[in-house]
Amino acid sequence: MLPYLLLDVDKCLLNIESMFRKARASKVFFRPHVKSHQSIEIASWFRKRGVSGITVSSLKMAVYFSNHGWKDITIAIPAIALDANKINDLAANISLNILVESAEGIDLIGNDAKHELGVFVEIDTGYHRTGISSDDKHSINNILLKIKNSQLVFKGFLSHFGNTYSAASRDEIVQIYKSSIDTLLALKSHFQAIFPDIQLSIGDTPSCSIINDFVEADEIRPGNFVFFDVMQWKLGSCSFDDIAVALIAPVIAKHPERDEIVIHAGAVHLSKEFIVDENGNKIFGLISRFSDGKWSDPIEHAFVTSLSQEHGIVKIRGHEIHSIHPGDLLAILPIHSCLTANLMRSYQTKDGKVIEMMP
Amino acid sequence: MLPYLLLDVDKCLLNIESMFRKARASKVFFRPHVKSHQSIEIASWFRKRGVSGITVSSLKMAVYFSNHGWKDITIAIPAIALDANKINDLAANISLNILVESAEGIDLIGNDAKHELGVFVEIDTGYHRTGISSDDKHSINNILLKIKNSQLVFKGFLSHFGNTYSAASRDEIVQIYKSSIDTLLALKSHFQAIFPDIQLSIGDTPSCSIINDFVEADEIRPGNFVFFDVMQWKLGSCSFDDIAVALIAPVIAKHPERDEIVIHAGAVHLSKEFIVDENGNKIFGLISRFSDGKWSDPIEHAFVTSLSQEHGIVKIRGHEIHSIHPGDLLAILPIHSCLTANLMRSYQTKDGKVIEMMP
Repeated sequence: MLPYLLLDVDKCLLNIESMFRKARASKVFFRPHVKSHQSIEIASWFRKRGVSGITVSSLKMAVYFSNHGWKDITIAIPAIALDANKINDLAANISLNILVESAEGIDLIGNDAKHELGVFVEIDTGYHRTGISSDDKHSINNILLKIKNSQLVFKGFLSHFGNTYSAASRDEIVQIYKSSIDTLLALKSHFQAIFPDIQLSIGDTPSCSIINDFVEADEIRPGNFVFFDVMQWKLGSCSFDDIAVALIAPVIAKHPERDEIVIHAGAVHLSKEFIVDENGNKIFGLISRFSDGKWSDPIEHAFVTSLSQEHGIVKIRGHEIHSIHPGDLLAILPIHSCLTANLMRSYQTKDGKVIEMMP
Repeated sequence: MLPYLLLDVDKCLLNIESMFRKARASKVFFRPHVKSHQSIEIASWFRKRGVSGITVSSLKMAVYFSNHGWKDITIAIPAIALDANKINDLAANISLNILVESAEGIDLIGNDAKHELGVFVEIDTGYHRTGISSDDKHSINNILLKIKNSQLVFKGFLSHFGNTYSAASRDEIVQIYKSSIDTLLALKSHFQAIFPDIQLSIGDTPSCSIINDFVEADEIRPGNFVFFDVMQWKLGSCSFDDIAVALIAPVIAKHPERDEIVIHAGAVHLSKEFIVDENGNKIFGLISRFSDGKWSDPIEHAFVTSLSQEHGIVKIRGHEIHSIHPGDLLAILPIHSCLTANLMRSYQTKDGKVIEMMP
């Protein structure tokens, strides 16, 4: 059924290989985030390359991947007391790390821990989503002492340099990376006397793609690089040819009088993630021609400019519209591949094989 | 598992009842759009109230609902030749209507039709998504003649007054409705000599909620009213108390120094749909307190202001933040309930019953 999400397996394998080699060269543990693909099969491609640990973004995802053979998992979202029993059950079977960012959660989760349970303290180095501010040594000290007095095993500091996603240039991504890793290194040495084995876990796709040397860190956790997308291309994290997924969708209407075609690809397929072009216009996807199971370079001056639930409006300037007709299939390059994959729930390869995601 | 989508069944039933009565009072056929809920069980609540026909937004949805007892379905997205065989198969078993908006599709679909297959011609009365411009009588005439010479059965003109979604006031919605229905009535009388039984099918949620009298139309197809949402409340289509779904999500972090809490509710739960407040700020959801299976009125000056894949940042001004703690459950009122439901894939009632959506 149309639309479907086409996965270019070769590009995906190259993306995996490239990040694997980077991690190995820097001697950091490679713990890829599986939220980007949510697929046991794609995870198995990492395993074949020697990856043994993964990062997930929910307890549900942790349970699913543990049921499919993954025995070393970090749940990279702050744990809540309501989940303590399920976390305990999971920790009985696998090597599990949770994340905390306030002292409040530790009492319940920490004291209830019946099995070895690793804990990372999340540090905010400037993204301002979750994490204790790296300046707040008082709170960090409090939480470390609470962990010390609990059943939890302190692993180290975890941080997501998510502010790289809104960087204006590759240079700015490098700057964010350098100042953030320096901040974490300073924290590590501050607390090293009491906690000598502090690990530093980092890893957003922009900095992991652009930086080549992570020797200061102990592990990296990027996810999105497995597919990349238009946002990463525009940030400079990848080339267009590295993008490994595209939504294959039919043209359902053509309105040359408005320089528009309409595709059967809406918010329930692409997600409403957008980037803004230099003129302030929202772009929900780029358009490529599609034939023989492959997509072309993007059509110049062609953009998905509006999405409703199942429809996408594509503005095409110039002569390109004349060779596009209702019923034609186009490839839509997603702005944020993780959200598009999450909506589509399965991948189709060039050979027609379907790869399912977690239910 | 958290987060989950809580459905207030009573509110949902009242929304259904209210729209059913309106349709009956205007003597129009009520063909609700099921894309909003995608649920056989919720569709059965319509059936109990006497509804026998539905609208869907994809062939896949048509097949699913036909497999579950619905025998009168309109696929309200322009049909493509690639789907001709599957449309034919479906038309063998049920009373099926498709949508066309250009002459190009008719040749293949129309001449291949082996079973009775109804066709609506989509008319654009000002939304400018799909549909032939209501001014373009030449193209409309061409398509009607092509249908007459095909195996298809012409049913009438279908239009979606989607421009009501961006109206600034209830008055503007009324104006859009009136001018759009007048346009359709003029077209109907223009073509009545050759096609005496032209039906007019209309029905966006804003105008169907605000207008009380649809006597000029033959059928209405609203969908979103089954749940409503923040967008509809702000448009004036419903009251806050009519909103029938809320995402129940835990607080995972609290940062009073930034007037922020963080919830485990991200783009994969709520969707990235937003409205813009009077100060130009994006709002991805409203926040209510949650207890005993019910949500409160929205907390004043509390808004979901940013979403990443699994995290939502909530700005709360004032004292309210002091009584909210990590681990607490909050109810998030979605901006666009159809997109939130589509992501969550199931509903939970107050009694803990789970209602599944189509796979």
